Amino acid sequence: MKRGDTGKPHGTGPAPRSVLLRDVGESGLIELLRRKHAGGARRGELPIGDDAAVVRVPGGRAVLSTDLLIEGTHFSLAYFRPEEVGGRALSANLSDLAAMGAEPVCYLVALAAPPGISVATVDAIFRGMADAAGPSGIRLMGGDTCRGERLILCLTVVGAVRGGRPVSRAGARPGDLLYVTGSPGWSRLGLALLRGGRPSRPSGWRREAMRAHLAPTARWREGRAAARSGAVAAMIDVSDGILADLSHLLERDGLGAVLAEESFPVSRSFRAASAALGVDPLDAFLGGGEDYELLMAVHPARRAIFLRAARAFPSGATRIGAVTKTPGVRVLRADGSWIEGAALPSGFDHFPPTKRRTR
Amino acid sequence: MKRGDTGKPHGTGPAPRSVLLRDVGESGLIELLRRKHAGGARRGELPIGDDAAVVRVPGGRAVLSTDLLIEGTHFSLAYFRPEEVGGRALSANLSDLAAMGAEPVCYLVALAAPPGISVATVDAIFRGMADAAGPSGIRLMGGDTCRGERLILCLTVVGAVRGGRPVSRAGARPGDLLYVTGSPGWSRLGLALLRGGRPSRPSGWRREAMRAHLAPTARWREGRAAARSGAVAAMIDVSDGILADLSHLLERDGLGAVLAEESFPVSRSFRAASAALGVDPLDAFLGGGEDYELLMAVHPARRAIFLRAARAFPSGATRIGAVTKTPGVRVLRADGSWIEGAALPSGFDHFPPTKRRTR
Repeated sequence: MKRGDTGKPHGTGPAPRSVLLRDVGESGLIELLRRKHAGGARRGELPIGDDAAVVRVPGGRAVLSTDLLIEGTHFSLAYFRPEEVGGRALSANLSDLAAMGAEPVCYLVALAAPPGISVATVDAIFRGMADAAGPSGIRLMGGDTCRGERLILCLTVVGAVRGGRPVSRAGARPGDLLYVTGSPGWSRLGLALLRGGRPSRPSGWRREAMRAHLAPTARWREGRAAARSGAVAAMIDVSDGILADLSHLLERDGLGAVLAEESFPVSRSFRAASAALGVDPLDAFLGGGEDYELLMAVHPARRAIFLRAARAFPSGATRIGAVTKTPGVRVLRADGSWIEGAALPSGFDHFPPTKRRTR
Repeated sequence: MKRGDTGKPHGTGPAPRSVLLRDVGESGLIELLRRKHAGGARRGELPIGDDAAVVRVPGGRAVLSTDLLIEGTHFSLAYFRPEEVGGRALSANLSDLAAMGAEPVCYLVALAAPPGISVATVDAIFRGMADAAGPSGIRLMGGDTCRGERLILCLTVVGAVRGGRPVSRAGARPGDLLYVTGSPGWSRLGLALLRGGRPSRPSGWRREAMRAHLAPTARWREGRAAARSGAVAAMIDVSDGILADLSHLLERDGLGAVLAEESFPVSRSFRAASAALGVDPLDAFLGGGEDYELLMAVHPARRAIFLRAARAFPSGATRIGAVTKTPGVRVLRADGSWIEGAALPSGFDHFPPTKRRTR
């Protein structure tokens, strides 16, 4: 329909109008989601449309995670395209499964939407999720829809543990080596770039930064291979930033860590991008969240086994430091100085306690 | 602290103030929920606090359902106590597992809350869920918290299929007998009663109606026994009203049903309550939702097996009609007249289509 592309009325008919949720009703929406986006049910499974979904979980243990995303708080349709909203949401949840070393199985989506939103927007959100699911094998198997003043998405993902054990956040020991997949920090650079306006045809570092922020990749292959290798003692995904998530990894066991800047996977392109955006590259690397890379603790005696497994990681893995018995994280700068405590970049609290906040 | 009970300031200190979410922060809230409400992890399981929860699902198939509840749309704290909000939410989801004949395993709760809400309110919501979980064995195993302008709850429940098959909505055949558990309609009467103001010390039918609406019981024992008996061809829970949910049960196979008013489990007390509230008892029985009773289709040849299983139903079960080859539902009134089509009470659509709505 070339004519509609101009966005202006032509000829005798009224201007083309988006199909709105109120035009199709709840049953119309559910039918659309089922037809276009539901995963195929395998033998003995039941997808969208019954009281509950039924999925096979060979091996006998299910891994579960849920995530609530509210328009205006977690995303804005003025800022993200609907495909990106869906893709980021799915990737963030798939990343939680990856961080357990689980096999992706299925996801459920509870959706609240204003009746005046276009069906195309909702459709694009679900398409973004399916695209981000990619070859991971995770399939939409159920959900819920209702009316809301603003868009709300609650994603629940289900994984299975096969041929190995789930890798939790606990289990690191002093002396363990700390590895991170990919190149954390690009998402923070993407955010800084987008704050100055979305480039229409980005290339080079702009493209890499935008992609990291708008279409992050969950490391499910890496997480699964890490769990199967048996060499990873503890694992977490980097959603709040390396320092914040490293703290989560260490706090159960009352441990600390030393990180060495010289070993950080920070490329020349990353430094150039940071400089162009006026962002401290160390801040972006250590404090930037939403990269969905994986952080792993590996016992030195199992290093060779781990490195063999890591050869199959599409993202690679880099050793950035080691676990210490002394609590707290210290970073050895390339110039030989140390930073620690309040001088380190910090994470994000949805309900910052008024008393504890000092700045 | 007797002194605080008066709700007025005494002595020299400031008035006692509720602890607010912003006082404890996100980590404080998560810690409280984990300490007070998290289910105990069994061997090989991981509860709240990791990237995802891990639960054992013996038998190899997980049953999943998710439900989004928004303050102002699905509930109001001006109208419901926080325990009731939590209890109703858990029961509605537990009922979805019941309707599949699944064994309750665990639940996840994603919560958005305004920073100014009291921690006691959030705590009471979770206590209500735990109370409604009761002896079903379902346990809180994970979730998500974030800030929101209003309270939002997204519950996801997980069940397992053991010793039998899940009972879906599809599978009814012409001639199947239709059974319903308990006494549907009381929740609608409770709603009518509460609209006139909440009685402080209700007794008799007022108490029963209020209880049905504010603290409904999910029929997980009935659903599990029905599935295990192998005698139930199709099953659904009555959340939108018998007629609406019966339609869902029949539509997959293009079937219809006849119901006979004479057989409906409508007690003298139910009639008296309806009369006092000015509600048509047939409307309340057929059109009232949120009772969370179960509706089952039973092949006549398996009736004896079903009735044996139903002896163990705490709620009992009543035959109310039969499945027909002709689509549509017809109700034979006690006076010998028939009602059908638009004359029947109708259900609820969150996004009513503008074009299709005729009144």
